[in-house]
Amino acid sequence: MERIDPSKAYLLLEAGPIVLVTTADEGRANIMTMGFHMMVQHAPPRIACIIGPWDHSYKALSATGECVVAIPTIDLARTVVDIGNCSGTEVDKFAKFKLTAQPAAKVSAPLIAECLANIECRVADTALVDKYGLFILEPVAIWIDRDRKERRTLHHNGDGTFTVDGRVLDLRERMVLWKAFQVAL
Amino acid sequence: MERIDPSKAYLLLEAGPIVLVTTADEGRANIMTMGFHMMVQHAPPRIACIIGPWDHSYKALSATGECVVAIPTIDLARTVVDIGNCSGTEVDKFAKFKLTAQPAAKVSAPLIAECLANIECRVADTALVDKYGLFILEPVAIWIDRDRKERRTLHHNGDGTFTVDGRVLDLRERMVLWKAFQVAL
Repeated sequence: MERIDPSKAYLLLEAGPIVLVTTADEGRANIMTMGFHMMVQHAPPRIACIIGPWDHSYKALSATGECVVAIPTIDLARTVVDIGNCSGTEVDKFAKFKLTAQPAAKVSAPLIAECLANIECRVADTALVDKYGLFILEPVAIWIDRDRKERRTLHHNGDGTFTVDGRVLDLRERMVLWKAFQVAL
Repeated sequence: MERIDPSKAYLLLEAGPIVLVTTADEGRANIMTMGFHMMVQHAPPRIACIIGPWDHSYKALSATGECVVAIPTIDLARTVVDIGNCSGTEVDKFAKFKLTAQPAAKVSAPLIAECLANIECRVADTALVDKYGLFILEPVAIWIDRDRKERRTLHHNGDGTFTVDGRVLDLRERMVLWKAFQVAL
């Protein structure tokens, strides 16, 4: 995987893919599936997401202030759903789902080698955590797998159906006010 | 358009479509394009989004506490981009883009007749507005156009390219912990 600038997180997240989130607490890694996330701002980059006490990952995220937001593609569709339908209290999800944990550069949570991209994050603001489980994250490093052919992400329709990325419509020439954001991933 | 329960907002938003947001301030309606939004919780339903002082709509949203989140489909792709590349300070966007404003049921902001769905919202929490422009919204009514054939939404990749909805993968049978969310839109 190639390391790219953390300011590029919006190029991976604004489109709203379903993501996996890894944490590590006292050496024990876990993974959850997450559909509730958004970009908050481009610069400095901030991401918001919902992870509450009802998620096993909440304890590790709260304790360490670190996680990795990993972006799976369609080849992992069933795994993404199954990860979201069992709990890290009972299962070692890396082992059960045959995923490869790789060391991150800046956080204790591991990267997932099988994902298209991995965004290392640190918790930047906990003001709305108690009320909604809403964490504001700062991306601190991003890894992207340049070699893979499969790049289609999944969008959860909220009910167990997922819309797969279709064709791409290029309207960059009309984005006259936003040229600064047209950088390569 | 048919009115459906506001608790169904997640079926429209979790997948991360680019959306339009309408507001109305002292009778003057405006529209903006918004890519930074997420679901916060299913029940009671809450949506988060980023609308800051840099957006013309911020003043109307702050003053009225009301907006409509409208979901356009691929037939409106160029309009969606162009709405995001001009300002309501200079332009009457409903007139300029030939969109039809329809009265909402519970808020002063108008529905957009040409959209697949319209979610009427009231501001529910402003705790992070000053810091990030992060509004927590409560959906109070939803309208959906059952008659239209075109239902493919757009996902902004952050750079002026948009991924169009492709095929749908049905993995509902694996969502053993989340059966309660498998309701019809």
